[in-house]
Amino acid sequence: MLQTAQMHATRSICVLAGGVGAARFVDGLVQVHDPSDIAVIVNVGDDFEHLSLAISPDLDTLLYMLGGLVHPEQGWGRAEDSTTALQAATQLGGEDWFLLGDKDIGLHLVRTAKLRSGAVLSQVTAEFTRQLGIETSLLPATDDQLRTIVETTAGDFDFQTYFVRRGHRDEVQGVRYEGAEAAAPAPGVISAIEEAELLIVAPSNPFLSIAPILAVPEIHQAVHERRNPTVGVSPLIGGKAVKGPADRLMQKLAGGGTPAAIAERYEGFLTHLLIDDLDSDGLAALEQRGVKAAATDILMRDREAREHVARAALELATAH
Amino acid sequence: MLQTAQMHATRSICVLAGGVGAARFVDGLVQVHDPSDIAVIVNVGDDFEHLSLAISPDLDTLLYMLGGLVHPEQGWGRAEDSTTALQAATQLGGEDWFLLGDKDIGLHLVRTAKLRSGAVLSQVTAEFTRQLGIETSLLPATDDQLRTIVETTAGDFDFQTYFVRRGHRDEVQGVRYEGAEAAAPAPGVISAIEEAELLIVAPSNPFLSIAPILAVPEIHQAVHERRNPTVGVSPLIGGKAVKGPADRLMQKLAGGGTPAAIAERYEGFLTHLLIDDLDSDGLAALEQRGVKAAATDILMRDREAREHVARAALELATAH
Repeated sequence: MLQTAQMHATRSICVLAGGVGAARFVDGLVQVHDPSDIAVIVNVGDDFEHLSLAISPDLDTLLYMLGGLVHPEQGWGRAEDSTTALQAATQLGGEDWFLLGDKDIGLHLVRTAKLRSGAVLSQVTAEFTRQLGIETSLLPATDDQLRTIVETTAGDFDFQTYFVRRGHRDEVQGVRYEGAEAAAPAPGVISAIEEAELLIVAPSNPFLSIAPILAVPEIHQAVHERRNPTVGVSPLIGGKAVKGPADRLMQKLAGGGTPAAIAERYEGFLTHLLIDDLDSDGLAALEQRGVKAAATDILMRDREAREHVARAALELATAH
Repeated sequence: MLQTAQMHATRSICVLAGGVGAARFVDGLVQVHDPSDIAVIVNVGDDFEHLSLAISPDLDTLLYMLGGLVHPEQGWGRAEDSTTALQAATQLGGEDWFLLGDKDIGLHLVRTAKLRSGAVLSQVTAEFTRQLGIETSLLPATDDQLRTIVETTAGDFDFQTYFVRRGHRDEVQGVRYEGAEAAAPAPGVISAIEEAELLIVAPSNPFLSIAPILAVPEIHQAVHERRNPTVGVSPLIGGKAVKGPADRLMQKLAGGGTPAAIAERYEGFLTHLLIDDLDSDGLAALEQRGVKAAATDILMRDREAREHVARAALELATAH
């Protein structure tokens, strides 16, 4: 079913992605499938301005991961980075709650300068992939402002304030995506969804990484109008998140962390779901929902495990 | 004549300053006079935005010099700084012609963030002096946009393009100060000029450092209405600039680099001029112009030499 790279821009695989889990999955995917035949549509709901810099954490994680620059243990930020600038900023009264390495700041400076001189995020991202020799297409969901706001018992917070500054400890009551209704998909996003033989929903937080992408009306529509398969990879293992608050959000906002609850988040377009062996008692419920499913070890502890998960997702897509 | 620090904000000495020579002079001055009794009005015509950062080179040089952070040989930038961020930016297509150290970027990030959230340059500068324990008042000439444009045979360039990017090699035909006519003095500037018993014009480029300050109409007026002495320190030694293009600009735009030509730049308010021994044949011409003058060794090769020049300027101010 899946073809290798074609001469024109059509790419056989399109991935919806956000966060470290998604970046690790895509890192596996580009090992088992031609990187130039993959487009990744990336969450921008986490983007924010900090210390005057325009920061796009999910795009950066993918840029660093696919560019071979990522910090291997963290899964985000750059390897062998220093924090000289941030320390100097802190000594002069700058905020220090968001870690910014010096190399990382170098990228943010270039992006911020380009955005201020009139470029849009998708252009800047394309330029970075070119500079870093990344063949996979990285597309921000939108070039417009879209901000994930987490509604908690302690108040409403932008994503980074909720996630980093307050350590995602607050009890979440809801999530909204400011600007999404008015946002247009970035160039190439809709055609990437429409033309892909396979759409993959990466193992990402459904509320904080995937929902902001789908909150853009034209993206929502394009995803739901697809005829070809859409394979999801569960973000939960044994009902628990590998990192982050996905399990707590699923409990609070979706009534549980079962495979069926995950599939329900993507109702109307998800045709397949890859889950962990630990959750295999949920396979029957998925089949009852009409979602084809398979279970395997989906913990992406190393490069081999990432490849295993990517391969399993591709195999599942051919299941009938 | 000169008093030590007083309880109220009045400061006995006010200095007009821009560039490394001025910073070295002020560094000497704060050794021989109470730092908290000195206000420095600083050129902002060199300020620019680069890699999205709001950079104020003359203010920064003084902040680093008086904060004990300056690179000792360069006389600008920070000691023991690295260029990790700039290298990363360059690898991603960022411009690299203006050297930005990591620690330096830390300061620029804080300033840029504060300016973007509504603070003005004088507020940010006051906050930095407080953070760095600097008792001397550093006042940008204006919080408004004022940009020195150098008109050359190769075209018109903003200051940093002329000075750094093109290495001040172009033949200068004129200099203009965009925005100056509409600029208001920053808070405290006029009172610092009016209340100071002594105004000092630091050894700075008359066209590129001092003239942009005086191009603000209210500053020009306040300087000319003073009754107390105004002492200049020549920026030339043996008719030559220690660094930079001051001598070439004096030749081209003022007909020569004599002490009298320097004094002519400050006609109408300069009462005294300290010159180098190498230029002492110009003393008579200064006296003829009604400018009291003295000659000494004014090369500020080390801390002791800076103190010597500062002391000589203070002594000259008491000459009748």
